[in-house]
Amino acid sequence: MSNMESNAADGMNYAPKGKPNPVVKPGEFGFSAVRLDHGHIYGMCNGLVEAGATLRYVYDPDPEKIANFVKAFPGVKVAASEQEVFDDPETKLIAGAAVTSERCALGIRAMEAGKDYFTDKAPLTTYEQLEAAKACVKKTGRKYMCYYGERLHVESAVFAGQLIEEGAIGKVISVAGFGPHRLNAKARPEWFFEHEKYGGILCDIGSHQIEQYLFYAGETDAEVTAARVANYANPEYPELEDYGDCMITGKNGTSFYFRVDWFTPDGLRTWGDGRTMIIGTKGTIELRKYINVGEEPATSDLVFLVNEQGEKRFDVHGQVGYPFFGQLILDCINRTENAMTQEHCFKAAELGVLAQMKANGLSG
Amino acid sequence: MSNMESNAADGMNYAPKGKPNPVVKPGEFGFSAVRLDHGHIYGMCNGLVEAGATLRYVYDPDPEKIANFVKAFPGVKVAASEQEVFDDPETKLIAGAAVTSERCALGIRAMEAGKDYFTDKAPLTTYEQLEAAKACVKKTGRKYMCYYGERLHVESAVFAGQLIEEGAIGKVISVAGFGPHRLNAKARPEWFFEHEKYGGILCDIGSHQIEQYLFYAGETDAEVTAARVANYANPEYPELEDYGDCMITGKNGTSFYFRVDWFTPDGLRTWGDGRTMIIGTKGTIELRKYINVGEEPATSDLVFLVNEQGEKRFDVHGQVGYPFFGQLILDCINRTENAMTQEHCFKAAELGVLAQMKANGLSG
Repeated sequence: MSNMESNAADGMNYAPKGKPNPVVKPGEFGFSAVRLDHGHIYGMCNGLVEAGATLRYVYDPDPEKIANFVKAFPGVKVAASEQEVFDDPETKLIAGAAVTSERCALGIRAMEAGKDYFTDKAPLTTYEQLEAAKACVKKTGRKYMCYYGERLHVESAVFAGQLIEEGAIGKVISVAGFGPHRLNAKARPEWFFEHEKYGGILCDIGSHQIEQYLFYAGETDAEVTAARVANYANPEYPELEDYGDCMITGKNGTSFYFRVDWFTPDGLRTWGDGRTMIIGTKGTIELRKYINVGEEPATSDLVFLVNEQGEKRFDVHGQVGYPFFGQLILDCINRTENAMTQEHCFKAAELGVLAQMKANGLSG
Repeated sequence: MSNMESNAADGMNYAPKGKPNPVVKPGEFGFSAVRLDHGHIYGMCNGLVEAGATLRYVYDPDPEKIANFVKAFPGVKVAASEQEVFDDPETKLIAGAAVTSERCALGIRAMEAGKDYFTDKAPLTTYEQLEAAKACVKKTGRKYMCYYGERLHVESAVFAGQLIEEGAIGKVISVAGFGPHRLNAKARPEWFFEHEKYGGILCDIGSHQIEQYLFYAGETDAEVTAARVANYANPEYPELEDYGDCMITGKNGTSFYFRVDWFTPDGLRTWGDGRTMIIGTKGTIELRKYINVGEEPATSDLVFLVNEQGEKRFDVHGQVGYPFFGQLILDCINRTENAMTQEHCFKAAELGVLAQMKANGLSG
């Protein structure tokens, strides 16, 4: 399955495949999948397997989800319970895509069982969960990592980080992120439309955007300046927020805006026209992550760099890979933080929760 | 001078030329130019002349500005004073590009002299000026119109309005506008860097963006939700705001965000990569107004429409024209409001002033 083929669907099972680039030998680093409520689990497991990890067990209470998963990962053993997975000494990391509001509880159980944890985004949905997750990390020394796939599993997004690192646009001063998604409501599970469970649009798909901002701007802390949500066109799902946007200001003064929505038109050739616009003191970067709208043939992972040297288009699909997954495996083994710091992971989650509270009129 | 040639400069003298499409006979509608402090006066006069208006007088205290203007418009008579222009009974409309903070005073003098007024944007810089302009319009029955050129004088922007009118994207729910400009500081006059004179970045180049939003979303009123300004990289000009962005929420609930800045990189082939993104309930429109970055050859006025029928790219440069100018002439003759209502013109100005006050920490 190429990236473009996976893109052609609605994004629910978006599971990019890259070039296998193992950082460990077979059997050297085992992980298991627990809870398959969101299709992102496929991308998470692909990424880890390509980086050399060995997928040991899968557990979910729903036999249909298990059957599909086993088709995609034929060597995996089906566990009869979560506990059976936790009891496996060769499982070092639990990858989970539970219902969003249950991701924290699963993580705490996994960390208490001595495992590192790698959850689908958003990693949690409330401030109380954040506090509990932080406390458990402190107590157990385990990792609570998150699949912020819209940067970690997108080659143009990875490449943008490399350009910034090289100084191609000077110092980053502003980031804008756009994460439109196709709703495809009939194919979604019930919990997707329950606010308490999905956590609100800014917390849910917004967390991707916030993570990218913190990374590109090099910010370790920030404040939510303003946040809005709406249900513009889906009154049959009263708890769905089909639109949200937000302004965040970094501790170092950088500016961020993001918009997320469920308005990808049916005629778009992929699940969403995701964009990132980055302004530096000496240049700009635009990412057209999943499609260059209106251009034939459909290509993903375009990067447009403009600086004093001119305008440059990079087509980086298949060129960059996804270094996050190998780094995560090595971080788990060596107790380092090269893939992502725990603080960064939690800060993106925190700002998502705070943005959501602000938009919903709750104090943060 | 083609649109692309004019684009290739820094935008200060951006003066698009279109197909002449006169709505009146020669001599039937006279106008004069007073105050040439901003190069936009060339675009304003071009637009009116192409629509059939007769340029009668020009006045400015600076002989160098007059000399340049006369080169561009050889038939124009040079007036010795503003009053000489006002005394010309054949001058029905005063086109002016004064220093921004002086535009309102010029307009009031023009309207008191019985002329309609067509000013460069921003049309005014303070709430007090707005009140005075409104009162004078009420008293004199004259028009106070504004050259919001980033919609009125951009074919892709005009075309977007036509697509929305035709229902191509359903009901508009969200607009995002990006107005980066090239600073080219050494070529700018002193007043450009004095906050009280240029009015602040959100009021100044932001007013373009706000006008577009009100038009595309069909909003007649709105509130400023949040606004920020910064000077990120130009400490030698302490009163310059080189960055600003703003969230506005319409009375009917539509969402708007815009960003304006002076960070166009030197290597961009035009003065700014202006964009507009419009989301409707049934589709999206993106405008790449002045350049399609990274694409050869350089083209302006691209419109990307995505709806249930698929993705469509329109190259509309030279295809659409600028109906505003002819409509404005006929509005002046017939006392109609087809080009733009007075209320719309003032509302865009008001929101620019309020956004600026909010960003500068002043109460609105």
